[in-house]
Amino acid sequence: MANASPRRVPVESLKAFCQHSLERVGVEPTDAEITAEVLVAADLRGVASHGVARFRRYIDGLRAHIIVVNHAERVVTETLATATIDAGAGLGPPVSYRAMQKAVQKAAETGVGFVAVRNSNHFGIAGYYAMMALERDCVGLAMTNASPRVVPTFGHSAMLGTNPIAVAVPAGKARPFVLDMATSIVAEGKVEVADQLGIPILLGWAVDRDGLLTTDSHRTLRDLKSRAGAALLPLGGEGESLGGHKGYGLALWVEIFSALLSGAAFATRVYPTDLEGKPLPANLGHWFGAWRIDCFRPVPEFKADMDDLQALLKSAPKVQGQKRIYIPGEKEYEAVEQNTREGIPLNDSVWNDLRTLGQELGVRLD
Amino acid sequence: MANASPRRVPVESLKAFCQHSLERVGVEPTDAEITAEVLVAADLRGVASHGVARFRRYIDGLRAHIIVVNHAERVVTETLATATIDAGAGLGPPVSYRAMQKAVQKAAETGVGFVAVRNSNHFGIAGYYAMMALERDCVGLAMTNASPRVVPTFGHSAMLGTNPIAVAVPAGKARPFVLDMATSIVAEGKVEVADQLGIPILLGWAVDRDGLLTTDSHRTLRDLKSRAGAALLPLGGEGESLGGHKGYGLALWVEIFSALLSGAAFATRVYPTDLEGKPLPANLGHWFGAWRIDCFRPVPEFKADMDDLQALLKSAPKVQGQKRIYIPGEKEYEAVEQNTREGIPLNDSVWNDLRTLGQELGVRLD
Repeated sequence: MANASPRRVPVESLKAFCQHSLERVGVEPTDAEITAEVLVAADLRGVASHGVARFRRYIDGLRAHIIVVNHAERVVTETLATATIDAGAGLGPPVSYRAMQKAVQKAAETGVGFVAVRNSNHFGIAGYYAMMALERDCVGLAMTNASPRVVPTFGHSAMLGTNPIAVAVPAGKARPFVLDMATSIVAEGKVEVADQLGIPILLGWAVDRDGLLTTDSHRTLRDLKSRAGAALLPLGGEGESLGGHKGYGLALWVEIFSALLSGAAFATRVYPTDLEGKPLPANLGHWFGAWRIDCFRPVPEFKADMDDLQALLKSAPKVQGQKRIYIPGEKEYEAVEQNTREGIPLNDSVWNDLRTLGQELGVRLD
Repeated sequence: MANASPRRVPVESLKAFCQHSLERVGVEPTDAEITAEVLVAADLRGVASHGVARFRRYIDGLRAHIIVVNHAERVVTETLATATIDAGAGLGPPVSYRAMQKAVQKAAETGVGFVAVRNSNHFGIAGYYAMMALERDCVGLAMTNASPRVVPTFGHSAMLGTNPIAVAVPAGKARPFVLDMATSIVAEGKVEVADQLGIPILLGWAVDRDGLLTTDSHRTLRDLKSRAGAALLPLGGEGESLGGHKGYGLALWVEIFSALLSGAAFATRVYPTDLEGKPLPANLGHWFGAWRIDCFRPVPEFKADMDDLQALLKSAPKVQGQKRIYIPGEKEYEAVEQNTREGIPLNDSVWNDLRTLGQELGVRLD
């Protein structure tokens, strides 16, 4: 059965399972629903590394009080176009959802809106929040810092997160443009997948604890997680010859906007521990923004140009062996269509883990 | 004398030469001064490809009326936090300077400011405009689209510009963070420099007209300029294995913000020609933004963290053979110090070209 098609779980079943599980550990229903929605949205979009595969970490964090259940979320400072929110060490998705809502609302009223969040946790996929701007004919932006996994150029230990940037832009008849990218060559999830499959990673993705390129997925993942010196390379790779300093610069940009403008922990100081090595709240920072298109240009003209640009790119000559030029987000929209129809694919390891978790919490998954 | 140190020209002499030359072809003094300032700023920062080496193209464009001398610049639409400006096909730097001034002014009043510009021309270095935010304790952003030079992932002809992103962030005692990067692996200027020196480009920077990797700097430059099928690769390189789709995604983001939000020409439609192949105005688009730091967090706290983050990065372990970890912008600040003291280095080809231009226009350079 090794080559059987993966088990698929209906979207609503998986969402309900996550929501009820969160409620069982004390999360209030609205926050549980948002968190379930954001996690399952990652799986729907084919980004399994940021979906329910991470769910145990959310539940474990809540049970260990590293993620605070009855958190005190508050707006620290606010103007017509800006705000900063302290997430009170609560779950990442609910505060991020509300922060992006606020950014879009401000954009609707003022033309632009930006909201910084501090004292937060893992927020799922950045693209989810950027896409919240689409229905209001706004352009959306989302960024976050993360656990240190990436080397600065010429450095050899992990100092910055895989620090994603997501930008969502509506189109007319064509699908929206949705860029959602780690600023490292690959996100940690790709190393996890290679490790689970028992295959090597590509040369150029990561360096080992001696700072040398490695293809060993298992050792890389282990040394990343234990902060034992392995690290992912920034977009552009090692050194400066193929632009590695640009990927490092982008990661640093995201770190500054997410963590320094909000007042969160940064670089190696996120996910701190106490003197005995016990984990403390992560204190991650996020950054959300929205621009109202019609403040710059009539929406119909803009959307017609978005369609036109996509058609122009798609009709461009392809390199040998390739049939399509993709628009960022296009593969994910196709995954959503398939997974909505057929259910979310879960590999055995994730399925068994969720079932065990369900038994612990008294929530059924089937 | 092949290995002699380069000729150096005092900053003020070079600026005055550019300003007076622009005035001789009819540019009004303020616009001439801004353009001279922005071009020389590129040389000062060590970015020779975007400095006075391009000056002849500015003058030739003005004389051929592709860049309009007495242009009608106008604000098309404006709100508290946003504006769109039509540059009237005039010089890029003056309208960009005024657009960024407006963005910073809006940020000072409203917390954030964004200004889109259409119907413009080459604007010099993006970093110049982003840095205009620094003195007001704002974070600055600048982007522009450009002549098609870069392939989309899986494509093999140039569809997008090298589309730079510049972000400037003030610090306390440390220097500001100034990211100013083409979203391709290298800007076209690096190929020009290799061609001038008669050396190959690195494997991975560009593909030839058949879509194959090439190291031939001369042929690449020729085929880029004549749009004969050669192209630069996006950050991350060919295909998707090392993240080339991310560099392509970033280039497309910049294209959308600069050209589609403003209503400029995009992708292969910039720098159009008429039916007889005669160049028409470029119709480039730019995007400028500013965020007021104290709308998110007290400035002293923010600046202390910027210093701290830089110190943390600089003290990180280095790979063998490397002594320093750089902060984006640091090398350029060091170049400014040296070039301010010693004068701007100009190679013989640029020097001779400027002298010839000076003779044509009756302006001395010495």
